[in-house]
Amino acid sequence: MKLVLILAGWLFALTVQASSIMQGEDGYRLWLKYDPIDNADVQQAYRQHAANWFVAGNSATTQVIKDELDFALKGLLGEASATDAESAGLIVAAGDNATVYRQKLKIETADLGDEGYLIQQVRWQNKPRLVVLANTDVGALYGTFHLLRLMQTQQNLENVALRSAPKTQLRVLNHWDNLDRHVERGYAGQSIWDWHKLPDYRYQRYFDYARANASVGINGTVLNNVNADPLILTSQYLDKVKALADIFRPYGIKVYLSVKFSSPQLIGGLKSSDPLDKKVQAWWKNKADEIYQAIPDFGGFLVKANSEGQPGPGDFGRTHAQGANMLAQALAPHGGVVMWRAFVYANEKNEERSKQAYSEFKPLDGKFDDNVLVQVKNGPIDFQPREPVNALFGATPQTPLMMEFQITMEYLGFSTHFVYLGPMYEEVLKTDTFAKGKGSTVASVIDGELYDYPITGMAGVANIGTDRNWTGHIMLQSNWYVFGRMAWNPSISSATVADEWVRMTLSNDNEVVTKVKDMMMASHEATVNYMTPLGLHHIMGAGHHYGPAPWVDSLGRADWNSVYYHQANSKGIGFDRSPSGVNAVEQYFSPLKEEYANPATTPEKYLLWFHHLPWEYNVASSGRTLWSEIVHRYYQGANTVKEMANTWDSLEGKIDPWQFHQVQMAMTIQQKEAIWWRNACVLYFQQFAELPIPEGLEKPEQSLEYYQSLSFPHAPGQG
Amino acid sequence: MKLVLILAGWLFALTVQASSIMQGEDGYRLWLKYDPIDNADVQQAYRQHAANWFVAGNSATTQVIKDELDFALKGLLGEASATDAESAGLIVAAGDNATVYRQKLKIETADLGDEGYLIQQVRWQNKPRLVVLANTDVGALYGTFHLLRLMQTQQNLENVALRSAPKTQLRVLNHWDNLDRHVERGYAGQSIWDWHKLPDYRYQRYFDYARANASVGINGTVLNNVNADPLILTSQYLDKVKALADIFRPYGIKVYLSVKFSSPQLIGGLKSSDPLDKKVQAWWKNKADEIYQAIPDFGGFLVKANSEGQPGPGDFGRTHAQGANMLAQALAPHGGVVMWRAFVYANEKNEERSKQAYSEFKPLDGKFDDNVLVQVKNGPIDFQPREPVNALFGATPQTPLMMEFQITMEYLGFSTHFVYLGPMYEEVLKTDTFAKGKGSTVASVIDGELYDYPITGMAGVANIGTDRNWTGHIMLQSNWYVFGRMAWNPSISSATVADEWVRMTLSNDNEVVTKVKDMMMASHEATVNYMTPLGLHHIMGAGHHYGPAPWVDSLGRADWNSVYYHQANSKGIGFDRSPSGVNAVEQYFSPLKEEYANPATTPEKYLLWFHHLPWEYNVASSGRTLWSEIVHRYYQGANTVKEMANTWDSLEGKIDPWQFHQVQMAMTIQQKEAIWWRNACVLYFQQFAELPIPEGLEKPEQSLEYYQSLSFPHAPGQG
Repeated sequence: MKLVLILAGWLFALTVQASSIMQGEDGYRLWLKYDPIDNADVQQAYRQHAANWFVAGNSATTQVIKDELDFALKGLLGEASATDAESAGLIVAAGDNATVYRQKLKIETADLGDEGYLIQQVRWQNKPRLVVLANTDVGALYGTFHLLRLMQTQQNLENVALRSAPKTQLRVLNHWDNLDRHVERGYAGQSIWDWHKLPDYRYQRYFDYARANASVGINGTVLNNVNADPLILTSQYLDKVKALADIFRPYGIKVYLSVKFSSPQLIGGLKSSDPLDKKVQAWWKNKADEIYQAIPDFGGFLVKANSEGQPGPGDFGRTHAQGANMLAQALAPHGGVVMWRAFVYANEKNEERSKQAYSEFKPLDGKFDDNVLVQVKNGPIDFQPREPVNALFGATPQTPLMMEFQITMEYLGFSTHFVYLGPMYEEVLKTDTFAKGKGSTVASVIDGELYDYPITGMAGVANIGTDRNWTGHIMLQSNWYVFGRMAWNPSISSATVADEWVRMTLSNDNEVVTKVKDMMMASHEATVNYMTPLGLHHIMGAGHHYGPAPWVDSLGRADWNSVYYHQANSKGIGFDRSPSGVNAVEQYFSPLKEEYANPATTPEKYLLWFHHLPWEYNVASSGRTLWSEIVHRYYQGANTVKEMANTWDSLEGKIDPWQFHQVQMAMTIQQKEAIWWRNACVLYFQQFAELPIPEGLEKPEQSLEYYQSLSFPHAPGQG
Repeated sequence: MKLVLILAGWLFALTVQASSIMQGEDGYRLWLKYDPIDNADVQQAYRQHAANWFVAGNSATTQVIKDELDFALKGLLGEASATDAESAGLIVAAGDNATVYRQKLKIETADLGDEGYLIQQVRWQNKPRLVVLANTDVGALYGTFHLLRLMQTQQNLENVALRSAPKTQLRVLNHWDNLDRHVERGYAGQSIWDWHKLPDYRYQRYFDYARANASVGINGTVLNNVNADPLILTSQYLDKVKALADIFRPYGIKVYLSVKFSSPQLIGGLKSSDPLDKKVQAWWKNKADEIYQAIPDFGGFLVKANSEGQPGPGDFGRTHAQGANMLAQALAPHGGVVMWRAFVYANEKNEERSKQAYSEFKPLDGKFDDNVLVQVKNGPIDFQPREPVNALFGATPQTPLMMEFQITMEYLGFSTHFVYLGPMYEEVLKTDTFAKGKGSTVASVIDGELYDYPITGMAGVANIGTDRNWTGHIMLQSNWYVFGRMAWNPSISSATVADEWVRMTLSNDNEVVTKVKDMMMASHEATVNYMTPLGLHHIMGAGHHYGPAPWVDSLGRADWNSVYYHQANSKGIGFDRSPSGVNAVEQYFSPLKEEYANPATTPEKYLLWFHHLPWEYNVASSGRTLWSEIVHRYYQGANTVKEMANTWDSLEGKIDPWQFHQVQMAMTIQQKEAIWWRNACVLYFQQFAELPIPEGLEKPEQSLEYYQSLSFPHAPGQG
């Protein structure tokens, strides 16, 4: 085994602590800081509206609203207190408690549904009031958080009149958390679920997790890894699940579980898990009954089946639909749903990996029960820094597709790279599938508009752990945030969300907002450049996916290896998924399929995803050869990180010192790793191109052999 | 697999949060809270002494002292600031910076050594001053923390004149932390060392860990598990170790590493790790040179060899001394030490486990190099709730023995049982070995007094993890604290330490102090009673050691099984280690060996450790039969926990709500588990005794089969 000093000899200034005792914003409070509003005029204006507030009702959820308002308004305004409806400047009411306001003020709320709300300036009993009205207490809770966001971002509340309702129904975090608290692809400490101490020990963090989710509209959480441990369904664990469900309920958050398809055999003592076996069906039915006995609002199951070694209906000669429907029928009487993952790729199938989800699920369209959603990763491979969208989006008029985004950054630098994923999510959601002609965006598939899906949803694989700042990096809190905001409204712009997140989390100072927002908006493109420019993909370290390893060529299956994906040779580089190759483009609707079939019309960002091109290929946007363009992109990516670091340094003194320091340390790591990526990839591909690194670009300090010798057996998050 | 609802049907009131947002003392600050002194007179008096302070010198350590004083005094006194020597009420000075004070005030400091200090009221330039003087800056740091402790506990500082120097040299935490952040026998989250983000990312927690250790005099830390990963010695990891060493150095804390004896083969490419092999010797010498190049004050190595599957010199036909000396010779030129563990028990040896450490190491006395210490667990088996002391203490006049206490509670209820270990440590340290006649206490062995050892030390297996409150349970912070205080002074009373810890951590209110101190002092005995009364031992769940499992009888080796240790049968119960049995008593000095050989003179707390006795045996202290006494002890233990819980409840409103709530939740678990222990053990032993549970004691709610069916595959901390 050869292990050498990683990145030795590179000189970066060590970040230094001014004092051995650092105090300040450690990140735990997320975007719910509620520090005093630093603009006296604004604060004074808000006091008029909200220093005296009234929340109607006495449910567990209205208690949560009261607690939040008490805490938040005392923080933001300095002073605030609950009062009665007559004296209150702010009134929050829902359902029957809101009837009197709806009627007398002639406000219609039917269109707000079960989760929507309105915030409005009205006159009530001869006094101006701010009202938050909804049809349900949970709607009122969402409205309350929206109002607090307006205050945190110092928006003008005069004449405010807004209405909001979520465009998707299931807005769900997926925790890939094991029962021993290891988080698969987790880079922020352990699982926040302390299964051993549950059900009796209830951390404050459980409550704050629920608050944070509710504040961005997330209404569901899958507690455990899709590579599921069957023990989660034992009564021993269900007792613990119930404790969490009880905590989350007032926040409008339902609990879901990932289940192992072979549970009837593994914990049920049955000889089979065949979905057509009556005993198996009965076992699941009884299990569902047992769960709902304890958790009446249990959300349902998430299933990874017949994928990467997980058991599934295929083991018994049954289809995904037969497997999903069996579970769906157990849950249906109680109102539960099945989220069945489309991330399947089988060794047996002689078909290129990017095509398998489509070819497996497209033929099953119309075969799923009403309470089944098929959950599809945004791209056809696996959460790469950038992928074209999965061709399944738009291809299943009769099967609700649920988006699966990854919030944790398995392939994007873990928790030390500053990457705001908003622009990436937005790029995906705005992609036009042309399924029903122009305008058939992925967003319109997901939110049910295109095909009028009966259920809709969006899932995000959580980046949350026990790290004090939740996500291991303060800036990456923005990805949890933007996921929630985009699940609520898939059409919202990532720039808008970045703006409000910065104001809530870092500062309302316009210089800070502008600079940080610019960094955020540039960060994803920068990372794509220093990792996988021009459509390259899956060239990370084997297993842990940490760092560059385009040389990986000896893993068990062809499509686990980097060389399979980049196909570099002396002639050129890229994966030919055009009609001359594996013809993955055929799965897309016209005109996408024609566009992607031709290098000249393929967007450059997907160029090497769809085409194997010669090193001399002329890249249109720059006029450079392909080799030169690849190299320039790698250097450009690393340079952007350096610029980001400089920008960040310029903010010292303008944001909280502890926030500043944390991000600065991470940026030191990111700078090193961006250069590591750049050097390793350029040197590796150079072997095939046999061309020099273009003039004016600094030469890598280390040899290719050096980069290839690096080994990281304890990199975090491994499966 | 059969898994049933654990402890179902038991009714305990669920602890309820008053609000969804809880604020207060979350435990992170440990005993270094520095909240304003709540007694105005005391605060005013302290202001006279310390509101203006001066620290002489400009070393990294004096900077730490300045930071701590600035932070602490502003907190305690409301206002305080640094000034010059002329105006200061408090002067801290060491070494050359202290010369002027020593000379003019005629104060002798030679006896304080390298780490001691004095705190004294003096007149200086016609003004009363409080001075903290030492020979080194680290001594001054210890003195500073002592002074702050006096203030936190509201001691009278008028005419204060105290001197203190540590009685042991190496006061070391052992972290059983793996490089993937799993902590073996850790119950407070992950390892606080984030190896992946080191060396660049330096958490504030690293600094606060160092502050906490320095505040109790701990001066060394072994960063990694004794079941060592050889990668820790690669340059990749040494770079990370160096980062931690750099952080800890100003706090007087040296870094040590656990090393795997076969490292030359595993990472060095050698064919052997034979300590007599020149190449092996050279490899270790070079490795030591490499380490000291980066870390000039590196402490040395901790080694677990030829024990529980770890490699060692025995694999090459060499003795422990030959193995230890080889490492010692690599470290000696740099001033490093080897801490060689005596916790060895070999399958091959046909000797009872409790006797092996002694029989292995006693013959090696005099064979170890000068910079080797043999590190011995307090008892002869393995950190049981209670053990007699290891017979090795006192038996090696020429070999320094280092105490190994366990602070983490592997066998004592993990991090949900409220057990203050001070009385247990004190019991061990005060035990008279009679090695050189009466008064040859274990403390006098350890601190070097008895045999004038050239090096002395005490190690504690840390209970520290990433949990916000560090130890998973606020009360268990006291065990970290008392370990440090007893390592500094093995003769200090555990009650004294409890008093100061409560005042610093919870409250100076006398009612709180008295009640909590009483709970602390009773807690260990209570736990012994509900787990392993009268000398019973090692009847915990297999592997994880969670909960009762006296029925374990099928593990790979005899002495891993519960039935081996309790030897219950129809005639009686207990392990015969008297001359009629395995004769472990022969290893002790007279009169202990005679005392322990006879049930009538064996202390009842060790009765079943040394003797197999009939169920009808008359227990002298109570006059009960052995069966009846065992049962009564189990019930008494569980009852004491209930009383503790009631006492705790009575403190609501008198301590911080968050502290109160955290402990209350844990006590709910402890109450359940104490009854679980009681019921499972009584029902199990009843099978053999065939006697009824004595009148007046409530019957167990569940059957023995129920308790035997419980399974905990994901219990934390497994090796």
